[in-house]
Amino acid sequence: MKRSFIREILETINSDTISFAGGLPNEKLFPMDAIAQSAQEVLNDPKSLQYSFSGGIPQLREKLAAYYTAMGLETTKDEILITTGAQQALDLISRVHFKQGAVVEAPAYLGALNAFNANGCPLFPTPISDLEAFEYHFSKTKRAYLMCDFQNPTGKCYTLQERKRFAHSALKHDGLIVEDGAYMELYFEEKMPILAMFAPANTIHVGSFSKILAPGLRLGWIRAESRWLQPILALKERSDLHTSTLSQMIADDFWQRGAFDTHLPNIRAVYATKCDYLANKLKILLPEFVFEKPKGGMFIYGTFEGDIDAHALAMECLKRGAVFVPGGEFYDGSPKSSEARFNFTHSTFAEMFRGVSIIAETYREFVKIRQSA
Amino acid sequence: MKRSFIREILETINSDTISFAGGLPNEKLFPMDAIAQSAQEVLNDPKSLQYSFSGGIPQLREKLAAYYTAMGLETTKDEILITTGAQQALDLISRVHFKQGAVVEAPAYLGALNAFNANGCPLFPTPISDLEAFEYHFSKTKRAYLMCDFQNPTGKCYTLQERKRFAHSALKHDGLIVEDGAYMELYFEEKMPILAMFAPANTIHVGSFSKILAPGLRLGWIRAESRWLQPILALKERSDLHTSTLSQMIADDFWQRGAFDTHLPNIRAVYATKCDYLANKLKILLPEFVFEKPKGGMFIYGTFEGDIDAHALAMECLKRGAVFVPGGEFYDGSPKSSEARFNFTHSTFAEMFRGVSIIAETYREFVKIRQSA
Repeated sequence: MKRSFIREILETINSDTISFAGGLPNEKLFPMDAIAQSAQEVLNDPKSLQYSFSGGIPQLREKLAAYYTAMGLETTKDEILITTGAQQALDLISRVHFKQGAVVEAPAYLGALNAFNANGCPLFPTPISDLEAFEYHFSKTKRAYLMCDFQNPTGKCYTLQERKRFAHSALKHDGLIVEDGAYMELYFEEKMPILAMFAPANTIHVGSFSKILAPGLRLGWIRAESRWLQPILALKERSDLHTSTLSQMIADDFWQRGAFDTHLPNIRAVYATKCDYLANKLKILLPEFVFEKPKGGMFIYGTFEGDIDAHALAMECLKRGAVFVPGGEFYDGSPKSSEARFNFTHSTFAEMFRGVSIIAETYREFVKIRQSA
Repeated sequence: MKRSFIREILETINSDTISFAGGLPNEKLFPMDAIAQSAQEVLNDPKSLQYSFSGGIPQLREKLAAYYTAMGLETTKDEILITTGAQQALDLISRVHFKQGAVVEAPAYLGALNAFNANGCPLFPTPISDLEAFEYHFSKTKRAYLMCDFQNPTGKCYTLQERKRFAHSALKHDGLIVEDGAYMELYFEEKMPILAMFAPANTIHVGSFSKILAPGLRLGWIRAESRWLQPILALKERSDLHTSTLSQMIADDFWQRGAFDTHLPNIRAVYATKCDYLANKLKILLPEFVFEKPKGGMFIYGTFEGDIDAHALAMECLKRGAVFVPGGEFYDGSPKSSEARFNFTHSTFAEMFRGVSIIAETYREFVKIRQSA
């Protein structure tokens, strides 16, 4: 089971543990007052607590359609489906469209792999920047799942040229690329055009309010043309009827009042600063951890020099009060690996400093034991 | 597709249509102020907007466990799983436990049939009160789905003896009966012991906040022993990570403040009065519609005398401004039928009176045409 590491650490982790392991947005940045205000506003209307359309409330679907149209990808509200978090989008999409298998990145987002595996979809993991391996497998499966912006776990952001090549494959084989844009708004410098722009009829774009508003609302969405979306909508209805009306109306009211205009720049700035700090501390205190600083998202991903087993290292660090996710977790079959993922959005500067110090010290002991063995 | 009738009428229905068709709780009974108060309370805590456990927030699971224990079915919080509405419970349960097929009632709840069909579960419909047919099929499938309390659509409430006989079958074959208790708290006179009490280790009990609080929150739950619950929990995580934290915390706060103590007696009393009114009007204005008055729930179900096609009648009534659901919709394959379901929770007395008048008039024209043909 792919979840073993998270399960393992849940038993040992406590409130004093410095965790680089999770993918939690920073609670201190949740716009509590604005959301409470939206909640009061929408709770004046009993419709906020009534059953609603399986596809989502029309006003929120219209806003999402306008959002894509403004970025140059013309979209109508009927091409938007609101889901119970992006996770449900991945579950539904794979149940409908991945039955014959799909190409996935290696490493890839654990939640996606788990959903695809649970639904019996044959997976074809290909190294994350190997476009030739991708083309080879995609020509057979005609289905793929990619995270183009600040990928979880690697933080990788595909170049414009890479995006166009993927899109070209999708068009050439009349296939389907599912593009997971969960982190697309968390850029520190510039926003890249999404892959879907270059192949609108051969892509499904998945989005999430979890990283830009709050995960506890469980709100995500799917953007796709009718031939892909209709069977997903039918399954959505059978899966949970519809997504929380209250959550949808709160997000819609928040958006309507223009609250994203100040909120998004704020989280981008705070996360960029935190990313800088963690990258800096890793470079100074643990230079044997080799990584490329990401330009957005929530994670720093890299490799420990010296052929260290990152899983064993993580377990030992955990005993000493700090933890990260070993990279093997993000590969099918959880192989032994020297790679590791560090989240930078959740901890304070002081916690990051202490955490990296603990990990650096533990790492050096591991290297010593290895050399003397 | 089973949804055809609802789809058909959605295109024609308008705000003036008197609808006995839906299964909507009455919005006027939503405890708006109490829920708004709970929302303000829980939105003081950023945890209400953060990721939470796949199984549900512990405090709400504890309350549900105590609720079962108080009714005589000892339950721990680890035997409770919070779902995104009861519909998700049925989707998850069938994906895990109904792969080899299940006995269902004929007629049965449409949403359950749709979920089971979408998940490729072979179904064995048996007439609703035919316990011998049930035993015959159950001895083979060892799986069944039943709604014991005020069944949707028939309003049937199984007797104590029937419940015990079902439980006996479950035990005898070491099988699994999934008991859907969505309407169990909507009794007008007395609450029956749930079937699960007589076979705790061979049942899954499903509950819902949709009928007792508000459907827009999308909150349901599953009560089951570990051997059944653990694989459902694993799939729940892969399906949508967890149910809205905000919805869960609002329901928990509402419960914590004792607000159900006044709210439940209130909706029971109002629904009982509405049921009386509709039953009365049907008896007076449309005595050719034969039914047994239910003792709870949200529906009156019966049969039109004279071998009338209820589907054709419903479509004609719709044109004239009133609509109900023809009974065929609740059977596999939507066969022709003279049965019909009337919802009594959503319309006002005046609307009910006008609606029944329209239907009675249309019915008589149908009978005349039939006699002259």
